[in-house]
Amino acid sequence: MTFPWLKGHGTENDFVLLPDHDGTVHGDLDPAFVAALCARRTGLGADGVLRVVRSAALDVPEAAASAGEWFMDYRNADGSVSEMCGNGVRVFARHLIDAGLVPADAPVVVGTRDGDKVVTVDGDQLSVDMGGYDVRGTSKVEVDGRVWEAQDVRTGNPHAVTFVDTLADAGTLLRAPSYDTATYPDGVNVEFVERVADHHVAMRVHERGSGETRSCGTGACAVGIATALADHALDAAGSTTYRVDVPGGTLNITVEPTRVVLAGPARIVATGEMEWIA
Amino acid sequence: MTFPWLKGHGTENDFVLLPDHDGTVHGDLDPAFVAALCARRTGLGADGVLRVVRSAALDVPEAAASAGEWFMDYRNADGSVSEMCGNGVRVFARHLIDAGLVPADAPVVVGTRDGDKVVTVDGDQLSVDMGGYDVRGTSKVEVDGRVWEAQDVRTGNPHAVTFVDTLADAGTLLRAPSYDTATYPDGVNVEFVERVADHHVAMRVHERGSGETRSCGTGACAVGIATALADHALDAAGSTTYRVDVPGGTLNITVEPTRVVLAGPARIVATGEMEWIA
Repeated sequence: MTFPWLKGHGTENDFVLLPDHDGTVHGDLDPAFVAALCARRTGLGADGVLRVVRSAALDVPEAAASAGEWFMDYRNADGSVSEMCGNGVRVFARHLIDAGLVPADAPVVVGTRDGDKVVTVDGDQLSVDMGGYDVRGTSKVEVDGRVWEAQDVRTGNPHAVTFVDTLADAGTLLRAPSYDTATYPDGVNVEFVERVADHHVAMRVHERGSGETRSCGTGACAVGIATALADHALDAAGSTTYRVDVPGGTLNITVEPTRVVLAGPARIVATGEMEWIA
Repeated sequence: MTFPWLKGHGTENDFVLLPDHDGTVHGDLDPAFVAALCARRTGLGADGVLRVVRSAALDVPEAAASAGEWFMDYRNADGSVSEMCGNGVRVFARHLIDAGLVPADAPVVVGTRDGDKVVTVDGDQLSVDMGGYDVRGTSKVEVDGRVWEAQDVRTGNPHAVTFVDTLADAGTLLRAPSYDTATYPDGVNVEFVERVADHHVAMRVHERGSGETRSCGTGACAVGIATALADHALDAAGSTTYRVDVPGGTLNITVEPTRVVLAGPARIVATGEMEWIA
């Protein structure tokens, strides 16, 4: 079985892209194949797979309802279906533009299982409107016997955002931080935030199910929101932007009262044809 | 720049293979390119690169002296040159046979910077004569405040082999075990060995510079040698074989008085053409 592929990443959140424009190459995209492909050492290795398929060629309700020509059929590294990925959709749009599949001078509408996402390109920065968010109360998180108060922010995923003096306070982050299971019955991503300068923070994140990662798009959004809240930065302006350094690079988070926008680089590093043997 | 590539692994020690038969594709193989290619998230990801080049086409002394048609130009993930890799040379031979570059029914002579290596194939098992070894004294290693006595075995690399009741005793192995720097001035790979059955052990390894890994060919050899020594298994026979389970699979180590043979699976999982963009 020979098929086209690309490898790309956004702030080191990395993906194998599988062009399958008419849905005839990979059929329903076997979860076992996705998992084998994403395995770091026994496969090619990636955080997930982005199948590039025409909305018209995919039999899912969100594709039928999409205003975009192209649909991001996103799968996690374990083969399971996932609705959306903020870094993934930016890499996906980068590919559509580079390959000439969409005009380079207009916002790119990408169909996803979380609905259409609009990606805007400005030089090497790709921005995606991540939609609305929900700020709730606070609860406690614990790492290595130290306890912090954490802001509950929902950006598609549940987040507990914790301000620390220095990111080293979060320790090795090998074990998941302890959290309030009443607040987060489905688990939580925990972000640790260090202030660097005015409107500039750095973060580390522990993602539920994945451990500490190099980047988390929805987590960076939650950090921008929690920081804007702490700074009362939205009160006067109505829009404020934070630079958020993640271990894999730099993202810029624009917070408005009813939506959050994730911006940052997205790169394609290799492309070709592959015969899969394993 | 478009070039052929393959991905393969031996007990989850993984490699990108770069066919460059006449040495005209990659020139001297730029270390920065190797490092970029091997980076797990910003590149393709691998433990190292195996360039497949004719011995006659490479201007290094060991290639000129090789009796093999094919030379394994091996590079570490950081781009530096390395002499040999026991799992790598088995993957390399698997490719030569699969691609019809050598006869399938004869031992494969592979030129390396550590001299010619002979790989023998028996079904899915590829064996390589790793040459001589050196058994020295004992010293202490320490993990998480626990101290063990370790056997000093040299198999190309320095090893400290420690017998434990259970592999969990080695803890998380995040930090390098402490060791006797007088015995190992250049650092050491530390192996923890649990006895499973007669002539069957399981191991974990902390490699200097890499941390805990899924497999280490020379480490498995050192474990086979140290276990044979502890069992006095060489005294009568002159040859003895141990099954050694590593986290990434199973190896079989045959110990003789003057040499050690490493055997196990080696697989090619993907092949194709690639355009490198990063």
